[in-house]
Amino acid sequence: MTPPRVRVLHGPSLNLLGRREPSIYGTATLAEIDRGLAAEAAELGLAVECFQSNHEGVLIDRIHEAAGSCAGILINPGAYAHSSLAIADALRAIALPAVEVHLSNVHAREPARHTLVVAAACVGVIAGFGALGYALGLRALLPHIQRR
Amino acid sequence: MTPPRVRVLHGPSLNLLGRREPSIYGTATLAEIDRGLAAEAAELGLAVECFQSNHEGVLIDRIHEAAGSCAGILINPGAYAHSSLAIADALRAIALPAVEVHLSNVHAREPARHTLVVAAACVGVIAGFGALGYALGLRALLPHIQRR
Amino acid sequence: MTPPRVRVLHGPSLNLLGRREPSIYGTATLAEIDRGLAAEAAELGLAVECFQSNHEGVLIDRIHEAAGSCAGILINPGAYAHSSLAIADALRAIALPAVEVHLSNVHAREPARHTLVVAAACVGVIAGFGALGYALGLRALLPHIQRR
Amino acid sequence: MTPPRVRVLHGPSLNLLGRREPSIYGTATLAEIDRGLAAEAAELGLAVECFQSNHEGVLIDRIHEAAGSCAGILINPGAYAHSSLAIADALRAIALPAVEVHLSNVHAREPARHTLVVAAACVGVIAGFGALGYALGLRALLPHIQRR
Amino acid sequence: MTPPRVRVLHGPSLNLLGRREPSIYGTATLAEIDRGLAAEAAELGLAVECFQSNHEGVLIDRIHEAAGSCAGILINPGAYAHSSLAIADALRAIALPAVEVHLSNVHAREPARHTLVVAAACVGVIAGFGALGYALGLRALLPHIQRR
Amino acid sequence: MTPPRVRVLHGPSLNLLGRREPSIYGTATLAEIDRGLAAEAAELGLAVECFQSNHEGVLIDRIHEAAGSCAGILINPGAYAHSSLAIADALRAIALPAVEVHLSNVHAREPARHTLVVAAACVGVIAGFGALGYALGLRALLPHIQRR
Amino acid sequence: MTPPRVRVLHGPSLNLLGRREPSIYGTATLAEIDRGLAAEAAELGLAVECFQSNHEGVLIDRIHEAAGSCAGILINPGAYAHSSLAIADALRAIALPAVEVHLSNVHAREPARHTLVVAAACVGVIAGFGALGYALGLRALLPHIQRR
Amino acid sequence: MTPPRVRVLHGPSLNLLGRREPSIYGTATLAEIDRGLAAEAAELGLAVECFQSNHEGVLIDRIHEAAGSCAGILINPGAYAHSSLAIADALRAIALPAVEVHLSNVHAREPARHTLVVAAACVGVIAGFGALGYALGLRALLPHIQRR
Amino acid sequence: MTPPRVRVLHGPSLNLLGRREPSIYGTATLAEIDRGLAAEAAELGLAVECFQSNHEGVLIDRIHEAAGSCAGILINPGAYAHSSLAIADALRAIALPAVEVHLSNVHAREPARHTLVVAAACVGVIAGFGALGYALGLRALLPHIQRR
Amino acid sequence: MTPPRVRVLHGPSLNLLGRREPSIYGTATLAEIDRGLAAEAAELGLAVECFQSNHEGVLIDRIHEAAGSCAGILINPGAYAHSSLAIADALRAIALPAVEVHLSNVHAREPARHTLVVAAACVGVIAGFGALGYALGLRALLPHIQRR
Amino acid sequence: MTPPRVRVLHGPSLNLLGRREPSIYGTATLAEIDRGLAAEAAELGLAVECFQSNHEGVLIDRIHEAAGSCAGILINPGAYAHSSLAIADALRAIALPAVEVHLSNVHAREPARHTLVVAAACVGVIAGFGALGYALGLRALLPHIQRR
Amino acid sequence: MTPPRVRVLHGPSLNLLGRREPSIYGTATLAEIDRGLAAEAAELGLAVECFQSNHEGVLIDRIHEAAGSCAGILINPGAYAHSSLAIADALRAIALPAVEVHLSNVHAREPARHTLVVAAACVGVIAGFGALGYALGLRALLPHIQRR
Repeated sequence: MTPPRVRVLHGPSLNLLGRREPSIYGTATLAEIDRGLAAEAAELGLAVECFQSNHEGVLIDRIHEAAGSCAGILINPGAYAHSSLAIADALRAIALPAVEVHLSNVHAREPARHTLVVAAACVGVIAGFGALGYALGLRALLPHIQRR
Repeated sequence: MTPPRVRVLHGPSLNLLGRREPSIYGTATLAEIDRGLAAEAAELGLAVECFQSNHEGVLIDRIHEAAGSCAGILINPGAYAHSSLAIADALRAIALPAVEVHLSNVHAREPARHTLVVAAACVGVIAGFGALGYALGLRALLPHIQRR
Repeated sequence: MTPPRVRVLHGPSLNLLGRREPSIYGTATLAEIDRGLAAEAAELGLAVECFQSNHEGVLIDRIHEAAGSCAGILINPGAYAHSSLAIADALRAIALPAVEVHLSNVHAREPARHTLVVAAACVGVIAGFGALGYALGLRALLPHIQRR
Repeated sequence: MTPPRVRVLHGPSLNLLGRREPSIYGTATLAEIDRGLAAEAAELGLAVECFQSNHEGVLIDRIHEAAGSCAGILINPGAYAHSSLAIADALRAIALPAVEVHLSNVHAREPARHTLVVAAACVGVIAGFGALGYALGLRALLPHIQRR
Repeated sequence: MTPPRVRVLHGPSLNLLGRREPSIYGTATLAEIDRGLAAEAAELGLAVECFQSNHEGVLIDRIHEAAGSCAGILINPGAYAHSSLAIADALRAIALPAVEVHLSNVHAREPARHTLVVAAACVGVIAGFGALGYALGLRALLPHIQRR
Repeated sequence: MTPPRVRVLHGPSLNLLGRREPSIYGTATLAEIDRGLAAEAAELGLAVECFQSNHEGVLIDRIHEAAGSCAGILINPGAYAHSSLAIADALRAIALPAVEVHLSNVHAREPARHTLVVAAACVGVIAGFGALGYALGLRALLPHIQRR
Repeated sequence: MTPPRVRVLHGPSLNLLGRREPSIYGTATLAEIDRGLAAEAAELGLAVECFQSNHEGVLIDRIHEAAGSCAGILINPGAYAHSSLAIADALRAIALPAVEVHLSNVHAREPARHTLVVAAACVGVIAGFGALGYALGLRALLPHIQRR
Repeated sequence: MTPPRVRVLHGPSLNLLGRREPSIYGTATLAEIDRGLAAEAAELGLAVECFQSNHEGVLIDRIHEAAGSCAGILINPGAYAHSSLAIADALRAIALPAVEVHLSNVHAREPARHTLVVAAACVGVIAGFGALGYALGLRALLPHIQRR
Repeated sequence: MTPPRVRVLHGPSLNLLGRREPSIYGTATLAEIDRGLAAEAAELGLAVECFQSNHEGVLIDRIHEAAGSCAGILINPGAYAHSSLAIADALRAIALPAVEVHLSNVHAREPARHTLVVAAACVGVIAGFGALGYALGLRALLPHIQRR
Repeated sequence: MTPPRVRVLHGPSLNLLGRREPSIYGTATLAEIDRGLAAEAAELGLAVECFQSNHEGVLIDRIHEAAGSCAGILINPGAYAHSSLAIADALRAIALPAVEVHLSNVHAREPARHTLVVAAACVGVIAGFGALGYALGLRALLPHIQRR
Repeated sequence: MTPPRVRVLHGPSLNLLGRREPSIYGTATLAEIDRGLAAEAAELGLAVECFQSNHEGVLIDRIHEAAGSCAGILINPGAYAHSSLAIADALRAIALPAVEVHLSNVHAREPARHTLVVAAACVGVIAGFGALGYALGLRALLPHIQRR
Repeated sequence: MTPPRVRVLHGPSLNLLGRREPSIYGTATLAEIDRGLAAEAAELGLAVECFQSNHEGVLIDRIHEAAGSCAGILINPGAYAHSSLAIADALRAIALPAVEVHLSNVHAREPARHTLVVAAACVGVIAGFGALGYALGLRALLPHIQRR
């Protein structure tokens, strides 16, 4: 039996991880994070399919596509987290369980990053733990996937 | 003589209509709405060309393209309605009459949906009447097209 | 069989239509609008009864009276649209379907006109299409009346 | 000796009590409430004279008239409670003790109902206890009437 | 030749002048103010017609009526000054010159009285000079009447 | 049969009643108020158990304890009324009917006292009637206790 | 007997009157206004001494100097009207009656001009009547000077 | 070698878990959560010491005490999360790594719960995953403890 | 004759002084500050009694207790300074002169620390001078104690 | 030696320059601006590569690509300037010097255009000088490029 | 050896001390305060040079001049304290230690006086202790002068 | 023929350039900047006359004086940029083209520096390029001067 698939979505500028302001975002590259997630997923009886895009619209497209083939969403919407009602609506539209992850602790940064618009359409949020946050997010999704 | 063309633009997640939170957005699919609009347009001596995109940029591209070939715009900007100064500027740039349509009554939903940024660049707004709103919007556009 | 009746309510200063700031509100008089609505209604198998008042309290009285005898409300609350929780409560109290109409595109005017308090108690809103907006509003009411 | 008179004022849409959103406002009609108040008043050595109006201006007129003939005011300003500086000024102008009553707990409803403009001109406020609130309000007025 | 007529409008609770919080509003009664205004008007070659109402709607009716027969408006909107977009719209609709008068210095009172919504539709405002303010207002109107 | 118990909770600085700013809070001491409440309760077939604490945490403890042994809560949260989401959550957690009482009319005092956070978790609020407010609060609780 | 003196203070850019945005501020020069005020003052049994300065500090100096020698202040604080707590404090410090005048109707201009900080320290305000406003202001001061 | 200790702090009303609004907070009791955490900790080579208090001050005391004996803090501040600068300061004062956990997704609840004051003093936040959130929080703390 | 007593109250996390973020709060311990204050007090003919608590409620208790035995209050409310209306009310209730002290310059820190709720109930505030601020506060209290 | 390259990015609707609201944006076309910039760049010893896109995501992609091959960024983010934290983050991620240019003086337009979110991630901003602004921006970049 | 000099700056209307609203500002004149400060300074091994000006610009000039000749600044910016970013910048520019003094407790006055813009550029603030505040301010400056 | 003159105005604390917070404002002195500007102006066929003042009023005087003799204004209003409606009005009054320059990127600093009140009365703004910004500003003025 094929394991349930989790679509992992990385938002704007996350493709630059490792190089981008490492004091805030850490030194792991996105490829390393994705490899780690694949291993973690296998351990939990899941499979991941990872995408990164700088385009709000592409992220929405990828969320829609997940409706038929995936059992959950793990999303780091990057800066779109704070304003994108459109991503939030896309998540509500497909009604899959979603978990939001942030590498940095957005609550300890400037005020514009304290509002979490996408989070209101997710099961919950994990922020501040760097790459580890994705692995924790996968575990947080698990019971919601098993319950389906 | 070919009938004046109205470009119909559907914003993010409207491709999921019929499946998406039907208690808010109704059970008609987007294809059904577009077919209905085509019939309605024919009756009014108009033709419609319908596009849907989840991308703010694509919606702007489609607005620009309409400048040469169309006589009016019928747009449901979805969640972009509440924040996209860029779509509003695109409508102002081409100076075609535009009508904004919303399936749900945005004024009766959460506060973030009460601000209508795109509407300020339109002739007017129709919200809350489901698929019928598009047909009404076409009729609202008609005198602005005939006046040109 | 008598046709279902729609109570049409015009708020403050709408009695001056045609004379009042025609660049904003158009040149049709209220009597012309009411005659046009009567014709439109007949076509749709409806009847209209039209009232205008500058008094918030009279508008509320007229809404209450409609509860027994009418099947729907078409209301242009004028400037009361932006502040009158009392009119909104009156509409909620009688539980008839109501449609709000504005001659001008309130979203393109000064900020005080962007808040729509009454609209939250209506099925939906139509704004910016001049006198035509009332006719569209009647059509928007129709399915809600037929559904009863 | 005639008992001191308390003017009881019911604001907009309270005439519809019993029919109006009973899950919020209860099933007692206004006539029943007024009858109950008359009995309660008699018990306390008071008399009540009850008025309802949907008109802010009529409520103000009734407050002014009370100046000569009454010893206190019991007022449920309905939706006007949240905005009417004019009713508040009328109460301040006549300098009779006034008590504000609300059937529902306005503090547990939407934010627009959390501001109590009229209350600042009253002795105090009672909110959330349905029809019983009026009886409690009468008792709250009593010492202020006796003190005069 | 009959002198140009100025419609003088007094808003809510101004009928109680002389009795109402005299430390704020002074000891002159409204009848005394109106008599003084008639004398002042005669001296300036004007005639006044004075009305008081506690009803926002009646004030709007009186503004509308003035359109045909009067040359200017002198209005003390009382507490409606701070919120009534409907009175402001009525003044804009008739396009007569209007002057707003306040007995007290609203800028030195509580914050809710610092916003002057009606004033935006007037030629200007005079506030804080008690009954004298009406006489000054008449003089301020004069050139606008003569210019017509 | 033992009468249903109502837990009466007095918040910070209410222990100083009688001495504390008597022009605002009256001259009755807390002991007098508690004695009065006991008598009032007996008359209504209820028993009261009264506690005062300056500690937000102790008030929460006392609310929790009431869950098993009491039928209702009468609470004057003092200054905590305006900010304590924690007390509100405690009341929601135990799901007993609660009535909030304030000695002074908080709506007529400085703006920080106009927000009532705890009230949103209560049946209703009584404010401005001094010690009498507690007695009225007991009566307001009665039907909620009898209904259980 | 020498007539009581009124110090007239003109704030920033009022020296440019006649040339400065005449559609807003009129075509009279400051010298003309001052000459007119001198004549008006003589008629009322007063004398004026007029100063203009673009310096907030000089305006404060001139207010202080007036304390010993003048009976009242007529001040057009120009743009300082909307922010200068320091000018307001200077007026409070000398405790002479002051009247604030504005040439334009500040309430009908951009929002930054709706706040009147200096006005809170004056007897009252006159705004929107061009040069005539100064003459009216002198009349408004008169009873306050006679009362001393 | 003794395992590093993590102090687990549960804030107000969390002692009622299992009974308290289970649709929001789940059906696990606090004792069950603490037992689960002890097992999870053992697996990770850690030990937990768990405390619950309804008192902001006690939570601060417990944070201070941890400075000497513990290697990290896992805290669910309950309603204090949204306002307690004092708890945030206590965490900053001891400079141990802290992780904040919420059972419910605070970002999807009422606006007062969107502000996270304590979180700004933590490594990161985990919200919305019920009891599982604590276990995830322990894992999130681990690298910060190992790094010391 | 015994010297007048000043109750010195230190709020949350001040027990950690010397260890706690020394770049903000300095390196003196609380015991050192208290010893310094005792010496300073003796010099001024006063005695101090010093308490520290992390509990808002305990601070209020200590304020109340001071009413009978002390002549003044010197209080550093720590983070409670910015939100505790309850501590402010406690100070108002006992009507002893109180001086508020802060080690750091709260006006130069993050916005949440710019609001001083407790200060409004004090004679004055001293902020930014480290431990020296307490000694200055004692001197500031002195004339208020001598005046009693 | 090849000259350092500056990537020039034009945001939404700037492709319509020359046709689009010329009273605001001028009559130069984008091609003309780009040609002018190429000449200007050559004079300064620089080369430009110009892109326009209506897509926020494409602009971010282009910013990322510049990291390896360019020495600086000249960006007119159009309407995205006022809201796009994602573009700002992209600029921060690549750490090249960037200069923001606006054709119109955004500070003199409607309030929504006064907030400059992207500018916070740039060296500086030039606004209001039409096409000339780009040439100035290139000169402003020069020392930052030479310094590298 | 000459003692270090402290420049003492008094802002607008402080020249009127003793006469100006003595219930707020006390009865000591500025000359008395300056004499007292000179004596106090001598005792501390300091010298003072005192200036008063109603001009924001003069206060800035005086701050600049102090850079070469003085060791510290003691400033009561009066009403400029609440808005003058320019005075704050002047203090930052010269990098001398500065202490801000207010005669009255600004935190207990109207909201416009709660914001302290200048204070953010000072070592600290002393407010509410009348003339004594200056002496305390001198003592607060001392260690900062000695440290240089 | 004499070259057109540009008045260059430097606001508060700019006289300290070179010494003042060089990490923000750079190391060039004002004299150096003025010399550089004179050379740059000569190259462009312009002449500059440079003034610095810490006084808002002097800056306004200098703006007024320029009306007769100059062809444009280059102004760095320093901290007055963010609040001075009076300087903005002075620029509007003389109707010469003005360009605003800031040494630092005000949009990347604290929020109080994000509002640009003076800029709304200028042709445009240049911020963030240190001394070079003045030279760029001169070039930006040039076409506006040539057009006159």
